[in-house]
Amino acid sequence: ASVMAQDNLSVVLHAQGDLRLENRPIPEPGPNDVLLQMHSVGICGSDVHYWQHGRIGDYVLKNPMVLGHEAAGRVLKVGSGVTHLKAGDRVAIEPGVPREMDEFFKNGRYNLSPTIFFCATPPDDGNLCRYYTHNANFCYKLPDNVTFEEGALIEPLSVGIHACRRAGVTLGSTVLICGAGPIGLVSLLAAKAMGASQVIITDLSAERLMMAKELGADFQLTVKREDGALQLAQKVEDTLGARPQITIECTGVESCVQTAIYATQSGGVVVLVGLGAVMCTVPLINAAVREVDIRGVFRYCNTVTKMTRTLEPTPHCRSRDRQHDDRHELDSDLRKITEQVQRNRLWETSCLFSHVAGYVGNFHNFFYCIKMKTK
Amino acid sequence: ASVMAQDNLSVVLHAQGDLRLENRPIPEPGPNDVLLQMHSVGICGSDVHYWQHGRIGDYVLKNPMVLGHEAAGRVLKVGSGVTHLKAGDRVAIEPGVPREMDEFFKNGRYNLSPTIFFCATPPDDGNLCRYYTHNANFCYKLPDNVTFEEGALIEPLSVGIHACRRAGVTLGSTVLICGAGPIGLVSLLAAKAMGASQVIITDLSAERLMMAKELGADFQLTVKREDGALQLAQKVEDTLGARPQITIECTGVESCVQTAIYATQSGGVVVLVGLGAVMCTVPLINAAVREVDIRGVFRYCNTVTKMTRTLEPTPHCRSRDRQHDDRHELDSDLRKITEQVQRNRLWETSCLFSHVAGYVGNFHNFFYCIKMKTK
Amino acid sequence: ASVMAQDNLSVVLHAQGDLRLENRPIPEPGPNDVLLQMHSVGICGSDVHYWQHGRIGDYVLKNPMVLGHEAAGRVLKVGSGVTHLKAGDRVAIEPGVPREMDEFFKNGRYNLSPTIFFCATPPDDGNLCRYYTHNANFCYKLPDNVTFEEGALIEPLSVGIHACRRAGVTLGSTVLICGAGPIGLVSLLAAKAMGASQVIITDLSAERLMMAKELGADFQLTVKREDGALQLAQKVEDTLGARPQITIECTGVESCVQTAIYATQSGGVVVLVGLGAVMCTVPLINAAVREVDIRGVFRYCNTVTKMTRTLEPTPHCRSRDRQHDDRHELDSDLRKITEQVQRNRLWETSCLFSHVAGYVGNFHNFFYCIKMKTK
Amino acid sequence: ASVMAQDNLSVVLHAQGDLRLENRPIPEPGPNDVLLQMHSVGICGSDVHYWQHGRIGDYVLKNPMVLGHEAAGRVLKVGSGVTHLKAGDRVAIEPGVPREMDEFFKNGRYNLSPTIFFCATPPDDGNLCRYYTHNANFCYKLPDNVTFEEGALIEPLSVGIHACRRAGVTLGSTVLICGAGPIGLVSLLAAKAMGASQVIITDLSAERLMMAKELGADFQLTVKREDGALQLAQKVEDTLGARPQITIECTGVESCVQTAIYATQSGGVVVLVGLGAVMCTVPLINAAVREVDIRGVFRYCNTVTKMTRTLEPTPHCRSRDRQHDDRHELDSDLRKITEQVQRNRLWETSCLFSHVAGYVGNFHNFFYCIKMKTK
Repeated sequence: ASVMAQDNLSVVLHAQGDLRLENRPIPEPGPNDVLLQMHSVGICGSDVHYWQHGRIGDYVLKNPMVLGHEAAGRVLKVGSGVTHLKAGDRVAIEPGVPREMDEFFKNGRYNLSPTIFFCATPPDDGNLCRYYTHNANFCYKLPDNVTFEEGALIEPLSVGIHACRRAGVTLGSTVLICGAGPIGLVSLLAAKAMGASQVIITDLSAERLMMAKELGADFQLTVKREDGALQLAQKVEDTLGARPQITIECTGVESCVQTAIYATQSGGVVVLVGLGAVMCTVPLINAAVREVDIRGVFRYCNTVTKMTRTLEPTPHCRSRDRQHDDRHELDSDLRKITEQVQRNRLWETSCLFSHVAGYVGNFHNFFYCIKMKTK
Repeated sequence: ASVMAQDNLSVVLHAQGDLRLENRPIPEPGPNDVLLQMHSVGICGSDVHYWQHGRIGDYVLKNPMVLGHEAAGRVLKVGSGVTHLKAGDRVAIEPGVPREMDEFFKNGRYNLSPTIFFCATPPDDGNLCRYYTHNANFCYKLPDNVTFEEGALIEPLSVGIHACRRAGVTLGSTVLICGAGPIGLVSLLAAKAMGASQVIITDLSAERLMMAKELGADFQLTVKREDGALQLAQKVEDTLGARPQITIECTGVESCVQTAIYATQSGGVVVLVGLGAVMCTVPLINAAVREVDIRGVFRYCNTVTKMTRTLEPTPHCRSRDRQHDDRHELDSDLRKITEQVQRNRLWETSCLFSHVAGYVGNFHNFFYCIKMKTK
Repeated sequence: ASVMAQDNLSVVLHAQGDLRLENRPIPEPGPNDVLLQMHSVGICGSDVHYWQHGRIGDYVLKNPMVLGHEAAGRVLKVGSGVTHLKAGDRVAIEPGVPREMDEFFKNGRYNLSPTIFFCATPPDDGNLCRYYTHNANFCYKLPDNVTFEEGALIEPLSVGIHACRRAGVTLGSTVLICGAGPIGLVSLLAAKAMGASQVIITDLSAERLMMAKELGADFQLTVKREDGALQLAQKVEDTLGARPQITIECTGVESCVQTAIYATQSGGVVVLVGLGAVMCTVPLINAAVREVDIRGVFRYCNTVTKMTRTLEPTPHCRSRDRQHDDRHELDSDLRKITEQVQRNRLWETSCLFSHVAGYVGNFHNFFYCIKMKTK
Repeated sequence: ASVMAQDNLSVVLHAQGDLRLENRPIPEPGPNDVLLQMHSVGICGSDVHYWQHGRIGDYVLKNPMVLGHEAAGRVLKVGSGVTHLKAGDRVAIEPGVPREMDEFFKNGRYNLSPTIFFCATPPDDGNLCRYYTHNANFCYKLPDNVTFEEGALIEPLSVGIHACRRAGVTLGSTVLICGAGPIGLVSLLAAKAMGASQVIITDLSAERLMMAKELGADFQLTVKREDGALQLAQKVEDTLGARPQITIECTGVESCVQTAIYATQSGGVVVLVGLGAVMCTVPLINAAVREVDIRGVFRYCNTVTKMTRTLEPTPHCRSRDRQHDDRHELDSDLRKITEQVQRNRLWETSCLFSHVAGYVGNFHNFFYCIKMKTK
């Protein structure tokens, strides 16, 4: 609709702490791709982590990389082989695109494919930029009642959905969620949307738990660092009247993993979402002889299409006003980031980061903002 | 609490059309049973069918049988081996109790056990009476916020839950429901509670569809008897923008089963809930080569415990006021039924039937009443 | 190894009955492809059907098409992006290659993808030719102890594996197979390999049943055209001492589908492999109220990789001598086919067809030959 | 058939190390029970452990208890409600019988029921005695071609079957088994019977591995105590050419659990069968981010009925001669045990133990004996 900018302003991480705003060429879509004008790009904890540390585990930044993978935009141009999208379509982006039709992909678990492309995981560029091309099969048309911001939110929600799906949450499930940070909260939203009857959530912070309550948690449990794993498990059982069938561990803290195992009903499931130390000491026998399964998650697969159809029933993701603002605000945010970076004012940049696209990415008020918007 | 009545007024079907109000002895609970004072007993289509026809399929009434299987009551006495219930507990009753630990039971599908006891299926007595004993393991304590009437409703809701579980409904599922009668509506409620994103429901009656809309259906499709199966399937696809992944067929009508198959997405599921003619002509190849599974349901299993925990999130089953009226109104209803039967005024009896326990069992305003109560 | 022929002799179907041996250019592999020198190509019933009728159901031959999809060959050249194969590798070919990363593919059911490429299904060319390119991810390296002929056999075996997997065959399963033709026999082999404890197989032909017995069937039941579905189901139950948990229907005959439903244990599964008339009259209610699932199959997915690893334990697929004859015999066979076609001696051609690659494709002695080789 | 002995010679453990041969009254079967004349009773490691230590984990011997739970016998008398068995039937005994129809039982996982009866787990008596009553629904009629000894073997085999079922072993699975003791070997037998294509097994003992080879293992890996977990995992991968999809850990040793996790393919499963220390230090994150599930087993459920049907295809459980010797040899063995105990010669008793019923229970030659019988 509007005249296209001539350059492609992009937020590029060159090295640990070395973030730059650069003009990159506008890419051409391949036959199966679409060219997108980015509208909303969330900032995930991993973006900030790469910026501050230059690596996450075995993923190490070696060359400049564009940040950003929680994203939605508008189709500008479609590749020659693309039939299900057209210029003008508003889409949510699934950042992981398998490069190979390997055994994982063939079996429906493409998130485990070792050669997968994933936005803003080195060496793959993300989409915190003006113009971006992506495989059209991993762009999902947004319904009219879903805003770009909400479209970008589908990515973090996917983590919760995948966790709950791996856990087998269904109608009547009773669920313990350890940790009320962003991932704990998306897991909570997903669990309730799947019909969980009772969700109890724990955290050190009473403030986070208040947010969890607003988002639908049935019970909140404030924990202290010195709480023993067994006692905590007992408290959970006392609160629910029975052990939960499912525990979704979102902290990565060793004692929380222990609590997760002790607390879960025989025959139940513990899902590990939080990442902690490489080695972890846990009561594995306790889990084994009670047939409590321990399952991890790696990103997600087959969630985004579900979510584009499902956003409506998740009340906390609903904007009252459905004006899809086409003025492209990403630019000014990007410019502000550069300025902060040039002045080396990292904290301000971090805050700004979190406001790109008009909402807060990985910080505690993440959902609160979403929620505020709905009022 | 109150003084127990000395006799056990019971609604007994002696033969087709021969319904009597009788005093039966108050039973003693066995070691694994509880004695219950019945509070609310819904009237199901099957109760009425036995009364009017003396049989359903291969189940033939040969001896007098107490009617009623949608029920909730209060525990008066517990058997010697019962530990999880005590006198005074309010419970929902699961009417099917396996008699044998056979292979079906051992595999978690006890509803298929050929020797199962089931209330008001010949020759097993139901619980439309003052006092009734039942296996304690198939009585589920009601939370304080759930009324007896709602407790009795768990039984019909279980049919919908079992259907949706057999269908694999989960977050983001798209669902077609054929028929907006009571079973179609409980399936709708269950599908939405399990996270279905889009439910389209069909019926001949616009009035029924209006009810379905109020209960959460996303799309309604009024059909005509002369509509072709293929055209109808096309209409469904056009409305949703894609074929539904799941179809729940609740009519038993041959052309609807055909529609169900044509309409469902490849790799999807058709669940057969409605019962029609013994032989049915269907496009089986169409289903087979698109790997559309066809699955039936027989009653349900493992649903009631879920529901006692889950009633709250199903908004349409929620009473605003949570007064558990202990005045036992069942008696006066039962007496009125007798009078009508003595006067041989069947229709009035039928209506009365449907009001026993203060709500309407198998008729169209079933859910409407429930809903009205919530306002 | 050997000098490449300069032309690419190919068996091309131009129209119903119009089969020609043509020289086609040798194709160049794309970046994700391999160029293969074909060694063994089985002739499936579908190849013959296209030749005789010009169509199968909705698949209609409109342009010339190379036949053949049961195939194995040797890699001559790999595309630039191929890393897991190299020239000289001996491979089995999975004939279905998804063209799009659509929802079916993403969910691990790529066989249902509507845009899938499939060898020798119009308009896609097959591989009954000297040189052929195929997506490298759908070529599976053969272990040294597996011959090319056996490699080509993986394709028809895949149908049986997929059917048994859809049925959920596992250790201790009891299985009825209706029809002892090629598909019934591959289903039998797969069922036994998966641990089925009792397999009963039916057919009109005592000769076919004898073959089934040699291949491991525990019970054989000779049927007559006039046998009633219920009586047959009873015979099956009498023979096994109980109803089978699983029935794999391989005839497509209406009365056999009826038998399949009646015969299967409550809670069991009927898999429809045989294809019959568009509309089919069946006791659907009988299946529904006993929760007997009806599932179809469309080709297969995720089977070939399993089979390349599994050929050894299937004793009937084992050749004693493991000489991989590199003299390329396909050529002379192809020439003979041409001659027969030129002389318009269809039956001889058909026989020849069935001997291409040294084994019999879709005829009754199919497995017998395989078996003979093992002695 | 024979005259019943007047007393019920029983092997009773009174306290740690205090084993006695006692005459107990012959029990009367309840309505759902059968009275059995025991024929073959294996001695499990747990029997010996109770004898030597007086406890296993939280199960503590407080009162005298009859040992024995791997058993088969002949029905002498049936309770009034028993219809599927009659006097004279030869049966295998499933030692675990749920006492309550609780949620675990209703969901098909009765092995997890906290109130389950289990032979020779305190305080429940076992069946190493002449006469024994058991719930008839947990006695499975043996086919004529299965001996009593083999019937008794079904119990230990069940552990392997349950482990493989929890692992999801199916046609083409690649499996690593850690530990070639009795449980490792039954897991091996079960895995091959379910269609596993490649099984690699590890142990410290070359002798054990030789046995594993004879029983069908495709690869053996001799390990040393000082081997690192990562190196071992690498060796496994090198041997198979790829990581195994499934690992069945049968040692309980911490470093083996670590190896199990490292060795397993992404998206695969580790099943914990071996029991080690209460707390275990493992690379949980490695499993989590690769979605390698960790699942335990507790005994088994729904296996015995499968096995009575399946013994034939497991070649190593097949006796050539099918003479069911009715001379009851249990008595003299029991007497010998007493003598040894009176002389306080524990080791001889242990050996004798292991020969009760003519085969060796938990010792290394367990399967070897079985195998010898087949020659």
